[in-house]
Amino acid sequence: MKKQRPPLEWEKGELWILDQRKLPAREVWIRARSVETVAKAIESLAVRGAPLIGIAAAYGVALAAKEKGAAESILNAIERLRHTRRTGYNLFHALDCMREVVQRRRGKLAEHTLVEARRIHATESARCQTMSHHGAGLMEEGEQVLTYCNTGTLATGGIGTALGVIRTGFLEKKVSHVFVCETRPLTQGARLTLWELVQSGIPCTLICDNMVAALMATGEVQRVFVGADRIARNGDTANKIGTYMLALLAAYYEIPFHIVAPSTTIDASIKDGSEMEIEERDSKELTRSIPGLAKLQGYDVWNPAFDITPAGLIHSFVTEYGIEEPPFLESD
Amino acid sequence: MKKQRPPLEWEKGELWILDQRKLPAREVWIRARSVETVAKAIESLAVRGAPLIGIAAAYGVALAAKEKGAAESILNAIERLRHTRRTGYNLFHALDCMREVVQRRRGKLAEHTLVEARRIHATESARCQTMSHHGAGLMEEGEQVLTYCNTGTLATGGIGTALGVIRTGFLEKKVSHVFVCETRPLTQGARLTLWELVQSGIPCTLICDNMVAALMATGEVQRVFVGADRIARNGDTANKIGTYMLALLAAYYEIPFHIVAPSTTIDASIKDGSEMEIEERDSKELTRSIPGLAKLQGYDVWNPAFDITPAGLIHSFVTEYGIEEPPFLESD
Repeated sequence: MKKQRPPLEWEKGELWILDQRKLPAREVWIRARSVETVAKAIESLAVRGAPLIGIAAAYGVALAAKEKGAAESILNAIERLRHTRRTGYNLFHALDCMREVVQRRRGKLAEHTLVEARRIHATESARCQTMSHHGAGLMEEGEQVLTYCNTGTLATGGIGTALGVIRTGFLEKKVSHVFVCETRPLTQGARLTLWELVQSGIPCTLICDNMVAALMATGEVQRVFVGADRIARNGDTANKIGTYMLALLAAYYEIPFHIVAPSTTIDASIKDGSEMEIEERDSKELTRSIPGLAKLQGYDVWNPAFDITPAGLIHSFVTEYGIEEPPFLESD
Repeated sequence: MKKQRPPLEWEKGELWILDQRKLPAREVWIRARSVETVAKAIESLAVRGAPLIGIAAAYGVALAAKEKGAAESILNAIERLRHTRRTGYNLFHALDCMREVVQRRRGKLAEHTLVEARRIHATESARCQTMSHHGAGLMEEGEQVLTYCNTGTLATGGIGTALGVIRTGFLEKKVSHVFVCETRPLTQGARLTLWELVQSGIPCTLICDNMVAALMATGEVQRVFVGADRIARNGDTANKIGTYMLALLAAYYEIPFHIVAPSTTIDASIKDGSEMEIEERDSKELTRSIPGLAKLQGYDVWNPAFDITPAGLIHSFVTEYGIEEPPFLESD
């Protein structure tokens, strides 16, 4: 299995960000020397995936410390980053860690914030390894699994959450085949997950999101693994729009449906999904890939980036601590 | 409401076919002077929609009669057309009608086949009017409905099947808003249905296919209307891939799910959906809209054009005869 280059690299005081919007057509890197460049990369989805967004934001704070120095400026940078996305929880978790460093340490903030960003990066990567091991333990030999969006190296910096489980399962001969949903409108499944699976030499089949019911009806799917952007105390889970559909269809076919996420995705401060804010994004994300729609006028577009899967539809939660059941407590 | 130009026009011995692959970006017409041009237009989806395919094939036979004259050549043309698509039933129904004319009439076959093609066209159009009236009768005032793929003028030559019901319902103030699923991979919902709704001045919102569960969870959808490509005696229905997903989600939310189709879509010769052949199409239909996927290698694509919705998930069938219940008998 070929080792994939990580999508974020800190080098000589700069953050290199792989622009995921261009993949797999082109490998373009963004050279970030300011917190603003990092913030814009997060907003524009050049960097995406809940755990990776947290890591990128942490490095963004380190850049701000290097750039500006004073604690107050760094705290302003943290506020700037806090408003880049709103649903995924890892961003807020990482920024809380960074704020604590800025508030507790006196002096050498550029060094201390970089140490903390590197710790977050390394810890998230280690969590991927552990949860992948736990998740693979759920499977029998030779299962065919379905996954959604992208939850691999590109989303986490490590081997992935749901895709980490699949990779580990493949090495242990538990996963024989992976069905990948396209994941409209930004096709992270078709562009990113397929690319990662092909690089890892794992047999896979691309389908459209609307084919899931027909596929499950064939009996070819034994298990569903997806990631998460935010998990409430009761287990209600925000994830890429379409996840809720998968969970309902899996429940109908009695196919186990698993959420794979680090404990940093769990927001134990909220009771359930009703307290989650769902980001709605620009309609152009949906229309720009369809020739002629841009000039057509007189219609609306609904483009929520996430939906909420009720805890009752989730067979189990795989975190770095093992197979967990809600209610969840504060993680750290 | 602006009257839409029909997507098929017979003029001075030639068939003009609106190339639906180019809509809504460009309005391109194909001038068909031979049966082969019509066959290729059907195969390539330049002309699509089960009822319209039947009408196009009928005109194709008329072209063959004009081109070749002899009964045997015309019967060969019918065989050629019979192999263009395989799931939608209207094609076979129309070709059976054309064959009967060729076999029963002696001489003047060019004239007689054109008369029959025009009868099929006019009859399908009239059926749309009648079933739209029946379907609108199902609704209360001010409902918000969901539809899928394209079932309008572009699919039928008339005002449409499911979209005909929606248009009639809008005029009668029963439909207040229409949610349109994109319908991957060929986006007939986003390209064609949106275009038709905008032309008719009907308020509408475009969503991705994977957003249906999240949308239904909001309570904003009161009813689902879709078309059909083939209906078995027991009511099992083949329609655009993704229809089965809609039906399962509608059943979960107890939202009435209606099939709207002319009796020529009913294939009473088959007992149920297990006897239907589902056309699988070229993987490029799915991958070509995603930059970089063409050069990526080492993955499969599954691209069935249709799926089968079991009769038990269908609240009612709207045909030109009214609201019907299976089992269905031979139509004509």
